[in-house]
Amino acid sequence: MQNFIDPAMKYFGSEITERDRAIFEAGISLGALFHQFVGMPLKKDKKFIENTQKIISESISTQPFIKSVEVKIDFDKLESHQNIYDYSTLTGKILEVKLIAKYGKTLVYSGIKFIEELNYPLMYIEKIEDSTI
Amino acid sequence: MQNFIDPAMKYFGSEITERDRAIFEAGISLGALFHQFVGMPLKKDKKFIENTQKIISESISTQPFIKSVEVKIDFDKLESHQNIYDYSTLTGKILEVKLIAKYGKTLVYSGIKFIEELNYPLMYIEKIEDSTI
Amino acid sequence: MQNFIDPAMKYFGSEITERDRAIFEAGISLGALFHQFVGMPLKKDKKFIENTQKIISESISTQPFIKSVEVKIDFDKLESHQNIYDYSTLTGKILEVKLIAKYGKTLVYSGIKFIEELNYPLMYIEKIEDSTI
Amino acid sequence: MQNFIDPAMKYFGSEITERDRAIFEAGISLGALFHQFVGMPLKKDKKFIENTQKIISESISTQPFIKSVEVKIDFDKLESHQNIYDYSTLTGKILEVKLIAKYGKTLVYSGIKFIEELNYPLMYIEKIEDSTI
Repeated sequence: MQNFIDPAMKYFGSEITERDRAIFEAGISLGALFHQFVGMPLKKDKKFIENTQKIISESISTQPFIKSVEVKIDFDKLESHQNIYDYSTLTGKILEVKLIAKYGKTLVYSGIKFIEELNYPLMYIEKIEDSTI
Repeated sequence: MQNFIDPAMKYFGSEITERDRAIFEAGISLGALFHQFVGMPLKKDKKFIENTQKIISESISTQPFIKSVEVKIDFDKLESHQNIYDYSTLTGKILEVKLIAKYGKTLVYSGIKFIEELNYPLMYIEKIEDSTI
Repeated sequence: MQNFIDPAMKYFGSEITERDRAIFEAGISLGALFHQFVGMPLKKDKKFIENTQKIISESISTQPFIKSVEVKIDFDKLESHQNIYDYSTLTGKILEVKLIAKYGKTLVYSGIKFIEELNYPLMYIEKIEDSTI
Repeated sequence: MQNFIDPAMKYFGSEITERDRAIFEAGISLGALFHQFVGMPLKKDKKFIENTQKIISESISTQPFIKSVEVKIDFDKLESHQNIYDYSTLTGKILEVKLIAKYGKTLVYSGIKFIEELNYPLMYIEKIEDSTI
């Protein structure tokens, strides 16, 4: 089914497909990203925000079967500071993520995006592809 | 495809199935649980550990499409304190989780378990069921 | 200066007093509490909120030199759910903490409280006492 | 007592000194740093580790009254990967921090360092200075 050795495969039910695994790994990494980095203090500085996006992306890319992670923090929505205490933190309202998981030949394009209508930082799957086609 | 209204369905690709969604939601919640609660200071007290298991379970059960969460912290592996600084924290080595996600009619039985062989707190899918059968 | 052995005392500058230590430990534990538990999913259920307050309190009480921790989550401010995605999480806006640190004979009464005027979950020291008086 | 306006001063007991405040803020930021960033996935790459150190430092420097933060992740102790699952995460064992807090004229030199003897990532105060001397 795949051309690499996954040492954990035996811990998964035998009916679990490549597609299932790619989706599962995408979900895990989105949940991990969110709960690891939300709450992080931020400053309204273009260079700092760019570097933070890059570090979060590279950190989550180390997780198994994650092919790429793109992170965007909405600079314009970072609050300007009224006083010394009023710094910003990373929240679901200003975070946008695109994450591609790959297991075997299956690619899952997923992401996080704040949906006003739901008042919720939704984790979603945009599409699923067979990379051999 | 399902007998409830999912207000987020339109944000998912049209080829995404109930099975895909149930797996995705299981992954998200396992990743969230791990990165939210690992690092939490623990004391070696049976009642406290029982209550902590219950709270983590109930907290994660509030997430969308999570049917049940069972959390087990390995009491015997909690280090005994050598000095005032040497308290325990929740780590992947002492945490075991069983989580059932349900989307439409599909049930995903998933979990977290530390695998010595991999030196890793593995998130896995045990089985996937159609609840109507 | 004190009637217990603190195995870490040698790592502190010789001019550091009991009062300094008690304040430092209070600060550490308030910072830890906030960044460990903020982001935790909550449900609007009296019993669950009571148990969550108790677990956070007991967890942080295991840290060195923490005498007591009282946690209050503002039940009335927990948002009611508009849809399946719209669950609440613990934020600085609904969290109130009172924490007493004790080092040697010095007691530090500190806390966390959201201050509207500052738009900030302020960590503060209410008073410092010599417990022998 | 100081030549800036601290809008939160009225929330602190009147007996709280500049020294007390500087120590308290150091403690808060060390506790916050630890519980925010521990658990973060890391890869064994010099450039990535350097950038991660810088981002953590800049993030925590945004907190009130923090003058400087130096972060060192022990590159040599980062585990080399045995398999695809065996990535590293930030732990108290590989993290070293030096943080200077300044309130009014008082400077507090503090830090985090893993102490083998205590089996503990100790938060300590090295020295306290009056910056006007």
